[in-house]
Amino acid sequence: MNQGAVNPFSLFFDLGTGLSKEKTSTKRYLADLKGMFADDQALDKLIEVYQEPVYEFYELDLPQTPSNLLFGTSIVYPGKVGNEYFMTKGHYHSLLETAEVYYCLQGQGYLLMENPEGDWAAEKLIPGQTVYVPPRYAHRSINTGTTPLITFFVFRADAGHNYGTIAEKGFRKLIVEENGAPVIVDNPKWKHSSS
Amino acid sequence: MNQGAVNPFSLFFDLGTGLSKEKTSTKRYLADLKGMFADDQALDKLIEVYQEPVYEFYELDLPQTPSNLLFGTSIVYPGKVGNEYFMTKGHYHSLLETAEVYYCLQGQGYLLMENPEGDWAAEKLIPGQTVYVPPRYAHRSINTGTTPLITFFVFRADAGHNYGTIAEKGFRKLIVEENGAPVIVDNPKWKHSSS
Repeated sequence: MNQGAVNPFSLFFDLGTGLSKEKTSTKRYLADLKGMFADDQALDKLIEVYQEPVYEFYELDLPQTPSNLLFGTSIVYPGKVGNEYFMTKGHYHSLLETAEVYYCLQGQGYLLMENPEGDWAAEKLIPGQTVYVPPRYAHRSINTGTTPLITFFVFRADAGHNYGTIAEKGFRKLIVEENGAPVIVDNPKWKHSSS
Repeated sequence: MNQGAVNPFSLFFDLGTGLSKEKTSTKRYLADLKGMFADDQALDKLIEVYQEPVYEFYELDLPQTPSNLLFGTSIVYPGKVGNEYFMTKGHYHSLLETAEVYYCLQGQGYLLMENPEGDWAAEKLIPGQTVYVPPRYAHRSINTGTTPLITFFVFRADAGHNYGTIAEKGFRKLIVEENGAPVIVDNPKWKHSSS
């Protein structure tokens, strides 16, 4: 075998819960999402009483080459900060020219995407819906339902994660609840970049 | 946008049937699998009475670049040719150094894999099980159950399909029914390659 060669293997991710007993998930809490929701005061208040993860996902340890693929599940729990739905931090790939595929297993929500050119899209997630995140698109999962939003994802193993750009600028759009239903609105905190 | 740039999109693949109403599947019939089962006579007899697809799958039309990913579902129907379970033709990727991920949605079976170095593996498929097909591995789905075996797959868009090597040589191993259960046996037809 070549150095760094990977053998066939399998991993179980429960279709109903998204969870794997074979791996430890990475969990993100409200405190990890400071500054990312529109309503900072609502976040500060909720942090005092809400100790559960906002979301969790699985990361694999495979050689970070263009030949390999990384995969796992992402589970975004239901909830809101003010009128804004629970969501993932969202990120660009460090290698901007790499794509990602999300297959929705449970729940409902949106995959919010935008690229540096100013294009954006919000694709609906329901069980069976597959969303293609093309190269150059930052992406964030948003749970607009009342049950966990569970997706199965795959991306190139050398893609890497760039969380910094979104942490600094935010996404152009937010998804918030109005009259009991999700609506897409402009993000008042969104920052133009000079880069 | 760059030439060849892809916009975000989504496609629905039913979790229960694997089918998409938005795309036309590619269907393979027994006649397409001539020479691939161990028992040619059993195949010839079954072809006369069995007109349904052995399997079907979806192919996307995205730019065949290393930046993009192709995805879809594969549905292998239950059945046997002699004592050998219904299966896909199986293939190498034309770009040998590319991987593929299979997430099992329904049914039960195996993903049979082998590489040119002589390594092989058979990973069990049950709902929730994800199988990693590493770079360099030919792969075939085999339905050992009584219901459709449905998987969701993702691979690099430039990987391409090399069906010829398997069509000529076969896989080293077969999965057949013995005493009502699947067993992995040597393929009597398997041909060594001088290449």
